[in-house]
Amino acid sequence: MAKEVTSRAENYSQWYNDLVVKADLAEQSAVRGCMVIKPYGYAIWEKMQSVLDGMFKKTGVQNAYFPLFIPKSFFSREAEHVAGFAKECAVVTHHRLMNDPDGKGVVVDPSARLEEELIVRPTSETIIWSTYKNWIKSWRDLPILCNQWCNVVRWEMRTRLFLRTAEFLWQEGHTAHATAQETEAKAHEMVQVYADFVRNCMALPVIVGHKSPNERFAGALDTLTIEAMMQDGKALQAGTSHFLGQNFAKSFDVQFTDKEGKLQYVWATSWGVSTRLMGALIMAHGDDNGLVLPPALAPIQVVLVPIYKTDEERSAVLAEMENLKKSFEALGHSVKIDDRDNLRPGFKFAEWELKGVPVRIAMGPRDLQNGTAEVHRRDTLEKASAPVEGLDRYVHELLDDIQKNIYEKAARFRETNIRKCDDWEEFKTEIQKGGFLLCHWDGTPETEEKIKEETKATIRCIPIDSCVCEEEGTCVYSGRPSRRRVIFARAY
Amino acid sequence: MAKEVTSRAENYSQWYNDLVVKADLAEQSAVRGCMVIKPYGYAIWEKMQSVLDGMFKKTGVQNAYFPLFIPKSFFSREAEHVAGFAKECAVVTHHRLMNDPDGKGVVVDPSARLEEELIVRPTSETIIWSTYKNWIKSWRDLPILCNQWCNVVRWEMRTRLFLRTAEFLWQEGHTAHATAQETEAKAHEMVQVYADFVRNCMALPVIVGHKSPNERFAGALDTLTIEAMMQDGKALQAGTSHFLGQNFAKSFDVQFTDKEGKLQYVWATSWGVSTRLMGALIMAHGDDNGLVLPPALAPIQVVLVPIYKTDEERSAVLAEMENLKKSFEALGHSVKIDDRDNLRPGFKFAEWELKGVPVRIAMGPRDLQNGTAEVHRRDTLEKASAPVEGLDRYVHELLDDIQKNIYEKAARFRETNIRKCDDWEEFKTEIQKGGFLLCHWDGTPETEEKIKEETKATIRCIPIDSCVCEEEGTCVYSGRPSRRRVIFARAY
Repeated sequence: MAKEVTSRAENYSQWYNDLVVKADLAEQSAVRGCMVIKPYGYAIWEKMQSVLDGMFKKTGVQNAYFPLFIPKSFFSREAEHVAGFAKECAVVTHHRLMNDPDGKGVVVDPSARLEEELIVRPTSETIIWSTYKNWIKSWRDLPILCNQWCNVVRWEMRTRLFLRTAEFLWQEGHTAHATAQETEAKAHEMVQVYADFVRNCMALPVIVGHKSPNERFAGALDTLTIEAMMQDGKALQAGTSHFLGQNFAKSFDVQFTDKEGKLQYVWATSWGVSTRLMGALIMAHGDDNGLVLPPALAPIQVVLVPIYKTDEERSAVLAEMENLKKSFEALGHSVKIDDRDNLRPGFKFAEWELKGVPVRIAMGPRDLQNGTAEVHRRDTLEKASAPVEGLDRYVHELLDDIQKNIYEKAARFRETNIRKCDDWEEFKTEIQKGGFLLCHWDGTPETEEKIKEETKATIRCIPIDSCVCEEEGTCVYSGRPSRRRVIFARAY
Repeated sequence: MAKEVTSRAENYSQWYNDLVVKADLAEQSAVRGCMVIKPYGYAIWEKMQSVLDGMFKKTGVQNAYFPLFIPKSFFSREAEHVAGFAKECAVVTHHRLMNDPDGKGVVVDPSARLEEELIVRPTSETIIWSTYKNWIKSWRDLPILCNQWCNVVRWEMRTRLFLRTAEFLWQEGHTAHATAQETEAKAHEMVQVYADFVRNCMALPVIVGHKSPNERFAGALDTLTIEAMMQDGKALQAGTSHFLGQNFAKSFDVQFTDKEGKLQYVWATSWGVSTRLMGALIMAHGDDNGLVLPPALAPIQVVLVPIYKTDEERSAVLAEMENLKKSFEALGHSVKIDDRDNLRPGFKFAEWELKGVPVRIAMGPRDLQNGTAEVHRRDTLEKASAPVEGLDRYVHELLDDIQKNIYEKAARFRETNIRKCDDWEEFKTEIQKGGFLLCHWDGTPETEEKIKEETKATIRCIPIDSCVCEEEGTCVYSGRPSRRRVIFARAY
């Protein structure tokens, strides 16, 4: 075996940490709470970026770049925003180091204190809206549809690789519009882009819905979210899209002249997904042997492992594998031949399983003679012998099938772990088991808060387009009337 | 006319600033020294990134991501590096804001002082080599070939958009090797990748050479550079690749067991290009009408401007343009139809010239009748009538021709402004005129320093593979013997 991974049953949390580190995705850095994303992990993130970026651009969004630093005073402008964001963040106070007068390395130069402190962006609404003020004069300047891929910093006390780190990578879209209606439509459009991406590329079902007012983004009138279920039954918020109303435009005095010549405040959305998606990908699909990557995001889709004893056998097998590699690549697949000669096939098998490569092909001298190869699929761990003739099409279709199967497995798991609950005692028992509970809620923040205190469960979302939820009833906690069910769960 | 641009002759520096701002590439932000890269500018940078990233990957390089912050103590580890880098940088001292007790917005929470200050990375050698220590045990772990695309901060006092900003975007490659020879070869390979990119994509000739010891990167044994000539005759360093020897491995104690079982320090390179390339692109090719973008990097390669009086004419022309657009896109070109109905064609022409779009096509009702279009090329400002039949191939070849012509024009300009100089009095006169001077130099830092003091000229590089430079002579300043010429110029 390659590196040992804790099993999910034994310790789900340790299993996750093992996968991240042992599959070479990321590791802790020398800086508290900041991670190093290793090449294999970064390659998955790059694939996510590339697909999402293309999807954004199809909706007319353009990329841009705004400063890393935000003047401290900007945080005071939008009252709700400052309450939600300005607390735990990295503050730059000085702009110079100097040699320690005592000769012990370097110290901060006390004379280089900034007049106004700068905050490393935890999110960029404020700096972007202070910029949009210069870009927007008339209705002809609208809409503005910008996105940026960047790093942000939130000084989290308890961090976990990918799920919650002080620095993380993300994209943040910020759009500006002339009407409330167009703005709300954009917020909905973007959350659906996220849902499509997570379903089709990450092979992970999500529920699209509104956040309750308690869980809204600081400064938003409405927050839309996609919620996914992990294998321990906990929810993971995978992306959010905010309808910000005119709050930021008012804070930064961004007005436009409409077609009638009247001055109006501009309407805003913002929306983002982050390297947290990596955490969702790992936790949703991995098994006790390691990662299970959907082919759409796998940096290596097919790995070829030669079996041989003699140098002659090695050359013969590798020659055939080179041909196969070319034929797979011609169909658009990424392929690696693992020709390391200091490791046994069994070790390599375990390593590529750990790394979640969707298809593994082994060939030895006997396969050469028979014109066959052994094809192993990562999702089901099934092996089959297949003829080399036509193996490119076979693998092409197998990858398709794996993508679908991973999605369906996750969808079945969710189906099994989502249930209606109408009784408070039952709620308290059921929520221990994990999964999503579909419950009536009286719509008050007080009830939500009490449920959270007693059970650690929060309202993950008020689903959109779910006929299951559209029914009248009474609140599972207060017994007051309710017009629709919402989703409760414990969450990452 | 669209927005007025200062002419180069009148004020070259103002011309540059005008182009950056009026062509919507970038602007100053609310944060001193930090820029906002606007969508049109960012689209050019994205094209640069995409081409370079592909070139890096072909050499076996993989992307990764390392923390934004570097513990202050890391800067004391490599003595030369700290001298060169640790001075002007952004220092994070606190991790929390709080509401001002006086009710005036937010203030830094004095109780949230970091134990050790964090520096926003000005470059990442130290944090990366502290990480590599965990990755490298044996010769089998080498080489490591990592690159990251990220933001860095250097607290520059005088900033200029793209050329010198406090925060900028770049890529930094960091490789680790077992032998000095392999490492030097990698440093040379990467500087040649940069040279290829700048010549072929940016259409800009460069001279590849070594930096003199004075101008080397802090901590490097050798710095390779590509130097380009701007239209005012000044040099611009467009990319560098460093042979770092074992300096960082020794500072961070990174050793490997070689094939003979002996412990050895690891060898290093690093190499980078930044958004400064945007400055080079603008200054090398722009003219008094605006940007001149090489087709390989133009976000819009072809713009179509309809000419019409009536609605009927408008629909007929736009219908034909949609067909043309599709045919150009089928050949891989990016195309925009400028159908804004509140602007005159002349205004649009000027705007797209300002933005440097390589090819502009205008069509009116008469063109429709004749089956022709008016094709305007940005580089020479020439207009020609061309048949609509076969216009796709015509434009395809025209774009090729424009790419070549822009390069050749820049090459001719450089040829005219590069000359040998063997007399100190002549040097002082000639250097005023701009351009590169090929001079003998005695090889001492003292002479280099004195020449800089007296003329503001520095040694841009000691060219590699230049037979013009390979001759014996005497130093233009000291008269001492010299074995080769080097390039002197004033620089950005």
